[in-house]
Amino acid sequence: MHDSEYVLRPVGVVRSPLKSRDECSKQGFEGAPDAWLEIDPAFVAALDGLTVGREILVLTWFHQADRDLLKVHPRGDPNRVMRGVFSTRSPDRPNPIGLHRVEVLEIQESGRVRVRPLEAVDGTPIVDIKSVMLESEER
Amino acid sequence: MHDSEYVLRPVGVVRSPLKSRDECSKQGFEGAPDAWLEIDPAFVAALDGLTVGREILVLTWFHQADRDLLKVHPRGDPNRVMRGVFSTRSPDRPNPIGLHRVEVLEIQESGRVRVRPLEAVDGTPIVDIKSVMLESEER
Repeated sequence: MHDSEYVLRPVGVVRSPLKSRDECSKQGFEGAPDAWLEIDPAFVAALDGLTVGREILVLTWFHQADRDLLKVHPRGDPNRVMRGVFSTRSPDRPNPIGLHRVEVLEIQESGRVRVRPLEAVDGTPIVDIKSVMLESEER
Repeated sequence: MHDSEYVLRPVGVVRSPLKSRDECSKQGFEGAPDAWLEIDPAFVAALDGLTVGREILVLTWFHQADRDLLKVHPRGDPNRVMRGVFSTRSPDRPNPIGLHRVEVLEIQESGRVRVRPLEAVDGTPIVDIKSVMLESEER
């Protein structure tokens, strides 16, 4: 069953002033800038119902990640004991899917959505967007 | 840039008493059972650091999803107005990645991890596991 492979087709791309991975803060709350989600015309209909002020989850593909790393120093700090990537939020992991909780600031009909904060470099592919359930719904 | 495709390689598989999508509750908190994450031997090292009692995010691939749907009735209720899938948590979406927040109940050295609650059918591929950051870390 899990010998299968699955193909991700990006639905859009991140446009951000962050141009390299070094510029990214380790987590969004540490000063990541506003960014634009540019959704492909073929997928703009899937944005219907999104509203300004709501929080959403943006799933990205960290195309610059190292997919062969299974252990890392948390937050890239060599003084911290190495841990398995599944117990961290490292972008380096077998399937480098990024998960970003952001606020919707602006929605343009063309399919451009301004959000904050997003710690992903310019050009990062977007693979999914999900609504954030209220805490009471989530658990 | 976003004309590229990316290949997901499952790192394990869900073992659950839920055998069909119809049996799944719409969200985990509505009575989903315990389930096992069976991690492939090649990826067991990535579990290092995971501890019983912690919450984790399990990312799955809804292999039974309809990837061509862009709008759905929320929660499958025909009385609700259709919305774009990006403003819902529908499993039907262009890249059907499932996101499940679960508690770790038991960890076996072989790479089997018992978790709760998980609303995914038996055989669902697992593509990633991430630590849950504390609310204060997350935003």
